[in-house]
Amino acid sequence: MQRSECPISTTLDLVGDRWTLVILRDMLNGKTRYAQFLDSPERITTNVLAVRLKQMEADGLILKTPYQLKPRRYEYVLTEQGRALHGVLKEMCRWANAYYPKTWTPPEDFMT
Amino acid sequence: MQRSECPISTTLDLVGDRWTLVILRDMLNGKTRYAQFLDSPERITTNVLAVRLKQMEADGLILKTPYQLKPRRYEYVLTEQGRALHGVLKEMCRWANAYYPKTWTPPEDFMT
Repeated sequence: MQRSECPISTTLDLVGDRWTLVILRDMLNGKTRYAQFLDSPERITTNVLAVRLKQMEADGLILKTPYQLKPRRYEYVLTEQGRALHGVLKEMCRWANAYYPKTWTPPEDFMT
Repeated sequence: MQRSECPISTTLDLVGDRWTLVILRDMLNGKTRYAQFLDSPERITTNVLAVRLKQMEADGLILKTPYQLKPRRYEYVLTEQGRALHGVLKEMCRWANAYYPKTWTPPEDFMT
């Protein structure tokens, strides 16, 4: 649901929740599989992860492809559109690093 | 509640919802009063607005000061920390403008 044609509220309609950009961060860092997302320190639940991945796919942020047939398992990769949110994440890092000094410093290659 | 020391998840713990950054956008554009926030095209409800403003104040993103005593009314202004989220909003504008061509182009002075 798009609340207005404002680019900020449009972005928030898609990724304005606590989890989507955390999953996207993991994908930018090379994670592709369910178990890898579950393993992150924020401890997303399987339930929330499944709902978020489905929504991200519907929104064109990620692609889901099978990597094993029996039993069928999937991996998830960012689309160009999903990958393009990297700039938003970098700005979030700069902001949190400036105001919350205990937050981790991201790897240099994430910030360039 | 801080899920981890990751700067991205820390930022999302504070502003990872559909409304906080919409209110912050309005403040960056000069709005300071309750009725002005209610008047935005996204049509936030009074209820959600009150809860969000209280949380933003608790998080150090805004300051609340009375501008009239009888009856008492308040205006809301960004702290330096709140204002520093401008970079995140600009990146959201760039992203939405690139992938959702119908979204509004922000005024030039918002983007510089």
